[in-house]
Amino acid sequence: MPVFTEYSAASRELRVLPSFAPPLPRLTSRIAAGNEEKFEVVIVGAGPAGLMLELLLARYGLDDDSLLCVDAKPTTLKSGQADGLQPRTLETLKSLGLADEILCEGCQMWQVAFWNPSDDKDKIIERTSIVPDVAVPARYPHEVTIHQGRIERILETDLLRYSKRGVQRNTNLLDVKIDEVGDTEFPVVAEVETNGQKRTVRSKYLVGADGAHSVVSRCMGLKLEGESSDHIWGVVDLVVDTDFPDIRRRCAIHSPSGSVMIIPRERIATGEYLTRLYVQVPGDVKPDSDQQPIDGTGVASVSDARSRRGQVTEKTIFENAAAAFKPYYIRPKKDGAVDWWAAYQIGQRVTNSFSVKDSAKVNRVFIAGDACHTHSPKAGQGMNVSMMDSYNLAWKLIYSINGLTPYSEGQPDGILDTYHTERHTIAQELIEFDRAFSSMFSGKIGASKDGAGSLTHGEFLEVFSKGNGFTSGCGIEYPENMIVNRTLKEDNNPIHGTDYLSGVLRPGRRLLNVRIIRHADGYRRDLQDDFPSTGRFRILCLTSSDLLNPRGISAQTLKQLSQLIGRFPQSLVEQVAIHPRLPKDFMWNDVPSELKLRSEMSFYSGYEMDDVYGIYGVKPEKGAVAVIRPDGYVGVVAELADVGRVATFLEKCIRTI
Amino acid sequence: MPVFTEYSAASRELRVLPSFAPPLPRLTSRIAAGNEEKFEVVIVGAGPAGLMLELLLARYGLDDDSLLCVDAKPTTLKSGQADGLQPRTLETLKSLGLADEILCEGCQMWQVAFWNPSDDKDKIIERTSIVPDVAVPARYPHEVTIHQGRIERILETDLLRYSKRGVQRNTNLLDVKIDEVGDTEFPVVAEVETNGQKRTVRSKYLVGADGAHSVVSRCMGLKLEGESSDHIWGVVDLVVDTDFPDIRRRCAIHSPSGSVMIIPRERIATGEYLTRLYVQVPGDVKPDSDQQPIDGTGVASVSDARSRRGQVTEKTIFENAAAAFKPYYIRPKKDGAVDWWAAYQIGQRVTNSFSVKDSAKVNRVFIAGDACHTHSPKAGQGMNVSMMDSYNLAWKLIYSINGLTPYSEGQPDGILDTYHTERHTIAQELIEFDRAFSSMFSGKIGASKDGAGSLTHGEFLEVFSKGNGFTSGCGIEYPENMIVNRTLKEDNNPIHGTDYLSGVLRPGRRLLNVRIIRHADGYRRDLQDDFPSTGRFRILCLTSSDLLNPRGISAQTLKQLSQLIGRFPQSLVEQVAIHPRLPKDFMWNDVPSELKLRSEMSFYSGYEMDDVYGIYGVKPEKGAVAVIRPDGYVGVVAELADVGRVATFLEKCIRTI
Repeated sequence: MPVFTEYSAASRELRVLPSFAPPLPRLTSRIAAGNEEKFEVVIVGAGPAGLMLELLLARYGLDDDSLLCVDAKPTTLKSGQADGLQPRTLETLKSLGLADEILCEGCQMWQVAFWNPSDDKDKIIERTSIVPDVAVPARYPHEVTIHQGRIERILETDLLRYSKRGVQRNTNLLDVKIDEVGDTEFPVVAEVETNGQKRTVRSKYLVGADGAHSVVSRCMGLKLEGESSDHIWGVVDLVVDTDFPDIRRRCAIHSPSGSVMIIPRERIATGEYLTRLYVQVPGDVKPDSDQQPIDGTGVASVSDARSRRGQVTEKTIFENAAAAFKPYYIRPKKDGAVDWWAAYQIGQRVTNSFSVKDSAKVNRVFIAGDACHTHSPKAGQGMNVSMMDSYNLAWKLIYSINGLTPYSEGQPDGILDTYHTERHTIAQELIEFDRAFSSMFSGKIGASKDGAGSLTHGEFLEVFSKGNGFTSGCGIEYPENMIVNRTLKEDNNPIHGTDYLSGVLRPGRRLLNVRIIRHADGYRRDLQDDFPSTGRFRILCLTSSDLLNPRGISAQTLKQLSQLIGRFPQSLVEQVAIHPRLPKDFMWNDVPSELKLRSEMSFYSGYEMDDVYGIYGVKPEKGAVAVIRPDGYVGVVAELADVGRVATFLEKCIRTI
Repeated sequence: MPVFTEYSAASRELRVLPSFAPPLPRLTSRIAAGNEEKFEVVIVGAGPAGLMLELLLARYGLDDDSLLCVDAKPTTLKSGQADGLQPRTLETLKSLGLADEILCEGCQMWQVAFWNPSDDKDKIIERTSIVPDVAVPARYPHEVTIHQGRIERILETDLLRYSKRGVQRNTNLLDVKIDEVGDTEFPVVAEVETNGQKRTVRSKYLVGADGAHSVVSRCMGLKLEGESSDHIWGVVDLVVDTDFPDIRRRCAIHSPSGSVMIIPRERIATGEYLTRLYVQVPGDVKPDSDQQPIDGTGVASVSDARSRRGQVTEKTIFENAAAAFKPYYIRPKKDGAVDWWAAYQIGQRVTNSFSVKDSAKVNRVFIAGDACHTHSPKAGQGMNVSMMDSYNLAWKLIYSINGLTPYSEGQPDGILDTYHTERHTIAQELIEFDRAFSSMFSGKIGASKDGAGSLTHGEFLEVFSKGNGFTSGCGIEYPENMIVNRTLKEDNNPIHGTDYLSGVLRPGRRLLNVRIIRHADGYRRDLQDDFPSTGRFRILCLTSSDLLNPRGISAQTLKQLSQLIGRFPQSLVEQVAIHPRLPKDFMWNDVPSELKLRSEMSFYSGYEMDDVYGIYGVKPEKGAVAVIRPDGYVGVVAELADVGRVATFLEKCIRTI
């Protein structure tokens, strides 16, 4: 267009950059800049758990003066072991704006095929069934497999938008202790070594995300509880050459010659596709031998380690795989087609406590990720549960540090206790599920249905399907605690039904995504996009069918909620509102002005795309209110008029102004 | 998982990086490295058209020794004028992996509201209707509005993954000519000046993407044809304070006091949302005055420019807007809420030729973007048509440069002629549509339906809706030419129906996206994701219901297609195959082995999600084959058995080996 007059503001240049997550308000004083040896948070380990935590804290507003993450390794690249992202993890990554590369370039795994011994001897094995890989409602109804190193690179790339330093590498943790004599404000003392240079770093909090052989855990005297089985498995990533028909589906193969699991993987630069195989290796190992690190330090004798290693080689893995795939062939496509292989022993352990307090009962040291739980890899849980540990901890930590909770600095902050309460519960469930699943997977399925002592396909499928609520991450439920309030009497409960997995609102569970249409502009949208991981609480108001009545319950509730929101620090509580089918079309001036004030761009029709009220278990004529925590989990539900219940809940979490 | 043996290949580290687009094969010799003054392609201008072209050529494989893009401005940031992305442009950006930030952070514009004079005098204006903003089938059924500078930044960020130099800035083009005496291989001679330093740059091809006042166009003696109207409009981007109910919808307001168009815009860092207003300004200007650049150079006298500028100010724009919005109020939310404003005059012009040939009839100089066409901004076309010019040109240029076409280097290459043929047609249609749309938009709509001489809402809506096939970019159709073959006799035509806008296959139109399920893994996928913009031709084989018959037509065709693909340079022709409902379930060994060989990861069920055969106008019992060009447009269609027709088409485009 031919322009002949033009003016532009300098701020216009800001419009071209990628959006930044808005930091949280801070009510406490900031740490003095440049004091290199004191940090508010020190993170040890930059795997998926450590990077996720550092990224979240940096986005929430901790700068390089407040936040330090150290890692022993020299680079971000690793022979990553994990490769699976579960639906709930994908939702979380989406809420951080980090899902696109993963969804587009990872391998979307939509189906699982089960192969079992065939009654027909020539066939040896046959496909018993194909089922959806994810059987529960989720925004992304599939897993994604992708190299763990790529996830770490995606997290770190984003981190470097918020932190100049990023991860301090080549830095080992030597020791950590709580020293309340020297400096009560920064009582956690860590001895670290960077390229041979030792130094002492003090902090308010320290998080050990340093893996299964966690130094933090050892220094703090935390104990892994549980045991190892005697099953050994080999795992290999490669480009395969095979005539097996389901090589691009996740497969559980129970053959007469042992079990194999196929995990299809992403496309690589050659245009070929990777495949991961888990292959059962015959032979026993001594229980508990997973306690020794692979570098040979620790209690195991070198010769013992050597003899165990000798049992599993690339050659034996392929021999075992070839036997299990018969009558089909499988081999590496060409020389150099094997990307990575390893052998491991199945064991399920969970650390007894996920945090350590000082003498004043203030939680000072936390552990997250593999430092908390070790288990078998085949259910694709490790990287997910680890990142979700950090996702659970991060907002609690920043609320406490920024003075946003109703506790005083240096006093025990109840919100920090909920980390262990919530995540230890999940870790326990994880290892219990994994124990059942792994042992069934290592067992044999009889060719005939009545094979004495052997597993039936039906039994295996049942464990697999029942576990899907847990393994997908979509069905996990945090126990009752100060930020999960289920103390509602039946006659005050606005929620009907108990099919929580399908979306019925339930404190302790994540808010299921639904599709809605925005009032302001007709945008057909995913509700979860109004719950980005910016650390804010949200009130979800499901207004009732009386919304257009200025003296109705909905109108009253919206007015009260608006007042309530105003009592908390600016921007900390947002409102999302939904309406059911109403008697007539309406414009903004037909509804309370508070609705436009608080929810102009977050007010939706809840019946034109998905039946939101039906899915959430809310009666349109009654409505309901829920508080959704910063991590997307429902904190409390209340009847529409019962704003007091909402207020009581929020006041326990957030300081009023 | 506790690992006790581990091995990894070095190549594993490659797995963590973002994917790169695979370059095209090159059959001609490469330009010698380090020869700074000779390039295969020089691009002038780094707006959306220039950047899109540079990015595509870099992805296709031209390195910094072969490719130079210069721009007069010092940085990428600009007071960008354009802000609208149309559905077809979004599909194109998606095919480049560049859509996510735009879709998530731009403003998705789903609806248009029409406001017209009300019969009720107190109301003044009233909403006549709300209609979908995009009324034609498209992968993204909405527009997106976002700052043009942000699009440029997204393109440049990606460019810098492929090119170290990126754009050479602060560099003006002084002159360009074709000099066939000095160096016949690099006959295009450009005089450029970087920070006062003049130098001469020779190239095989030069593309002028240097805007409405194109120096390339002027030096080559190309002429803009068309004329300006006498309508002046103001345009302003701001954060508004208003009680107008549809401020977040695209609105066409015809009020008794003039017309306004509202374009809702993206959210900015403050959390507020931008709005763009186009406001009609009363008063005339001299026709043709849009020929003078705004910096005062050129033929217009300084005093003339000054007097015209004086007619439109920020104040007059808001006065006119306030009058048109009555009885609603509208104003900037606070001081500094105005981001940008400008005044422009509507005019429609198209350049007579989009390329210039040397004496051997080889196309040497091209123009793209605003250098080709100027028009009013209100239909949101400018940035789209400009980028699509480059998208059309890029693959043709690289095919010619890399020796992939059946022409000899330095000889006229027919594929380069098709750029003008195809894009000039679109530019003509653009200015014709824009002339009708703008003049109706600047006209008055009568309060009473019978208002003599005035426009009715129905008439306006009809132009708006009919134009949507064109404005969305989804309905454009390239004319018959060597890469659009419609010469099919009726009894050989496998395509039924003529509703091309809804997807019926038609040479010259883009392949509509459909949802399909992949045979290999059950992935529920968008078909367009198998047509990324990597410069490859694809054969789309819609197999018939006899696919499971080893002697059927489908099997024969697949075998012949596989042979055909093998005759072209490696990787240049890909195959995508779809099957209709078949008499029974099948595995890979039930279909021709060529299908797995060519389409293991691009073979789909075409009936479980969308009715692909129905949408594409193909009978399942007959099937069909189509060739899809590298830009996603259908080149030719043929009956299933008629592989000869496919071969003839491809052999005109691609050299055989």
